[in-house]
Amino acid sequence: MPPNRIRPIVRIAELEIDPNQIAAYNALLSEEVEASVRIEPGVLFLYALSIKGSPDKVRVIEAYADHAAYEAHLTTPHFLKYKTLTAGMVRSLRLLETEPISLKAKGQISN
Amino acid sequence: MPPNRIRPIVRIAELEIDPNQIAAYNALLSEEVEASVRIEPGVLFLYALSIKGSPDKVRVIEAYADHAAYEAHLTTPHFLKYKTLTAGMVRSLRLLETEPISLKAKGQISN
Repeated sequence: MPPNRIRPIVRIAELEIDPNQIAAYNALLSEEVEASVRIEPGVLFLYALSIKGSPDKVRVIEAYADHAAYEAHLTTPHFLKYKTLTAGMVRSLRLLETEPISLKAKGQISN
Repeated sequence: MPPNRIRPIVRIAELEIDPNQIAAYNALLSEEVEASVRIEPGVLFLYALSIKGSPDKVRVIEAYADHAAYEAHLTTPHFLKYKTLTAGMVRSLRLLETEPISLKAKGQISN
């Protein structure tokens, strides 16, 4: 594989959030997403979404440069803060590991 | 919203592929992904993945600049070719529309 190409680890987290705590959950998730991508060199993107019409159903598409980057992410203060403060808000969490078929992007996406 | 920020349309396609046609399907999907991101200004990214251990279960995370870009995508020759040639390979297709919570990325991802 050419050195200028990367094959990131991509995961999909499927979550169900307590419907009474969606705004608080989304604020904590947004803070964690922003900090992770800004601070951690190995976090390539984090796209946090809810299913239209079902704000309690959240999907996070996560990309890490490699396994070490993912393991490092799990020990960061911002991730641990998110996990601790949202523990009572998350009703279920399913983590899907994936194999990339094709990943193509035009450039930086930010909102 | 500041003019340098975008709020793309993001969709998640969940597909089940005929297990006997996965290699052919993945080749056609990869061709379509590459052409769409290269040719269409409004296609921001397409991330095509399979669930680890279940190569027949495919997810495509799709981002478009706006609704017009999505509508235009559906009429392109490369998309129509993909739809036609994969029609007999796709056992089910579920399209999830989403609301962005937070979308952050470091830069271009390509493989």
